[in-house]
Amino acid sequence: MTKKPRLAVLLGDPAGVGPEMGVKLLARAENRDAAELLLIAPPSVLAAGEKIAGTKLDVIALRPGDPLRFEAGRITHLVQPEPAGFAKLGECSVPAGQAVLQALTVATELAKHGAVQGILFAPLNKHSLRLAGMDEEDELRFMQQRFEVPGFTCEFNITDQLWTSRVTSHVPLREVADLITQESVGEAVHIIDKALRSAGIARPRIAVSGLNPHAGDGGSIGLEEIEVIAPAVERLKRDGLDASGPWSPDTVFIAARRGDFDAVVSMYHDQGQIAMKLMGFERGVTLHGGLPVPVATSASGSAFDIAGKGIARIDGLQHAFDLCVQIAARA
Amino acid sequence: MTKKPRLAVLLGDPAGVGPEMGVKLLARAENRDAAELLLIAPPSVLAAGEKIAGTKLDVIALRPGDPLRFEAGRITHLVQPEPAGFAKLGECSVPAGQAVLQALTVATELAKHGAVQGILFAPLNKHSLRLAGMDEEDELRFMQQRFEVPGFTCEFNITDQLWTSRVTSHVPLREVADLITQESVGEAVHIIDKALRSAGIARPRIAVSGLNPHAGDGGSIGLEEIEVIAPAVERLKRDGLDASGPWSPDTVFIAARRGDFDAVVSMYHDQGQIAMKLMGFERGVTLHGGLPVPVATSASGSAFDIAGKGIARIDGLQHAFDLCVQIAARA
Repeated sequence: MTKKPRLAVLLGDPAGVGPEMGVKLLARAENRDAAELLLIAPPSVLAAGEKIAGTKLDVIALRPGDPLRFEAGRITHLVQPEPAGFAKLGECSVPAGQAVLQALTVATELAKHGAVQGILFAPLNKHSLRLAGMDEEDELRFMQQRFEVPGFTCEFNITDQLWTSRVTSHVPLREVADLITQESVGEAVHIIDKALRSAGIARPRIAVSGLNPHAGDGGSIGLEEIEVIAPAVERLKRDGLDASGPWSPDTVFIAARRGDFDAVVSMYHDQGQIAMKLMGFERGVTLHGGLPVPVATSASGSAFDIAGKGIARIDGLQHAFDLCVQIAARA
Repeated sequence: MTKKPRLAVLLGDPAGVGPEMGVKLLARAENRDAAELLLIAPPSVLAAGEKIAGTKLDVIALRPGDPLRFEAGRITHLVQPEPAGFAKLGECSVPAGQAVLQALTVATELAKHGAVQGILFAPLNKHSLRLAGMDEEDELRFMQQRFEVPGFTCEFNITDQLWTSRVTSHVPLREVADLITQESVGEAVHIIDKALRSAGIARPRIAVSGLNPHAGDGGSIGLEEIEVIAPAVERLKRDGLDASGPWSPDTVFIAARRGDFDAVVSMYHDQGQIAMKLMGFERGVTLHGGLPVPVATSASGSAFDIAGKGIARIDGLQHAFDLCVQIAARA
């Protein structure tokens, strides 16, 4: 029997749909059976989520300094300080961002010391994090900093069985081509290969997308495929990976959707995101790769427009939870 | 009562699925009722298509110089010279390309002189056209040259009710950003607006996509949205168009799919093509915009791998036919 993994669960931005989603997720008995759950949240944020979700969680409340303890079927609540001011639903604010950064910091510390084997968070809001003083590009880099992980990290987007990642991310389109190197392509493929193996796929089939229309059409629409991407794929094959490509960007996702690949590595943000969002935004998962433990959330965001209405779907967050448990259990 | 439009119908590349698709389309009685049909093909290509499709068309064969005539329910066949050599199924060749260029030239000439009000062609193969000596970038430019149309032309991709076009097309990704100007964006929107009106939409709702991830996220991921695209959209609004944007590239197609827009103008090839191909490749239509008459084909290509098997679907070609008839009838 595999030991149950222990997950930190965070409620995301207090002003968004995160708290209600987190509470709904934790209210499911099968989730409480699947892992030992450590909820990291201020009491008022938990209470607000419970009110909107229309359910009350059975928690063991722990104060800072209390030793961690878990009971079957119950949730351990690591009580956090209250945000310094009321976070109004649907608005970015410093206190909301501070609450999220605080919870992420605590979760990262616990993971660093082996106290949790995975981190799941409900949707947060990057703008609130910036208001609250986050210097890093996003929460992945924020956590990477605290984990003191020096290497290449990246975000995986997962819909149903298909994983995707990208060689470049939040950079202007005009800068993309110069960032596509044999090294950056190789690293992106290696990291998703490793992550898929950690999720139980023995030999992941990884499609590498081209950069240009029709993957350059034999060099007539750009040379990056011939000069950079194809050699990178050849090297990956020599390293024993089941990598292929460069594939034409506008058809590789059709092949992947029908099951030809386990993952697509795209060259830039929208190449992957246009496809993945069309293929099932509400079921999508974001997994942060390259950290010591799995860190997952739903692909959908803090959805300020429907916060507090109790209608936010939790399909994506549930998939993120399942994946986090699966990877943590194999670690 | 609207007069029936007269369409030129071409069978595409003789080595691909075009002839069988064209014959299946022409065999449908409702299509022969919807328009006067002028088939432009060599006899052997028609015969090959009939054999694969398992049906024989009732045609009035006309030799060059014969006056055009039409009979209800029958197809007028403008007999073309035989290709100079056997075109093997599934292979690009000079004779195959020559046959297509010849048919396109005849159709364009007829349209220029008002003898047909629209041109429909079954899938052709660009590589065969190049082998046969086409100097232009693609068949759109080839026809534009023969129509002697100087202005901006572009390709529309249509799936179900949604139209899309792009400001840049078959250019390397690294050159895209510099080609996005207020003028090029404005022209692209005007031309699709005009085409949608010609297809019967009184005031087309046109979404203009951004260029960068998250449409630049307020300038933090690229400035083209602020400096170029937003001002272009403002100018279009002042011109009375129902244009909006710049929208985030990875969500605009989700909004468009649920019916928020009649068209999306994308900034580069794969931004639009990734989305449109995922949303219904086999039903898609390609319409060439900016020519004096509608010129349409299916989004799917010459499909050499299944040529001759009689299994190619004609949904896209049928939609292309319907659209061509609709626009030609309103002209």
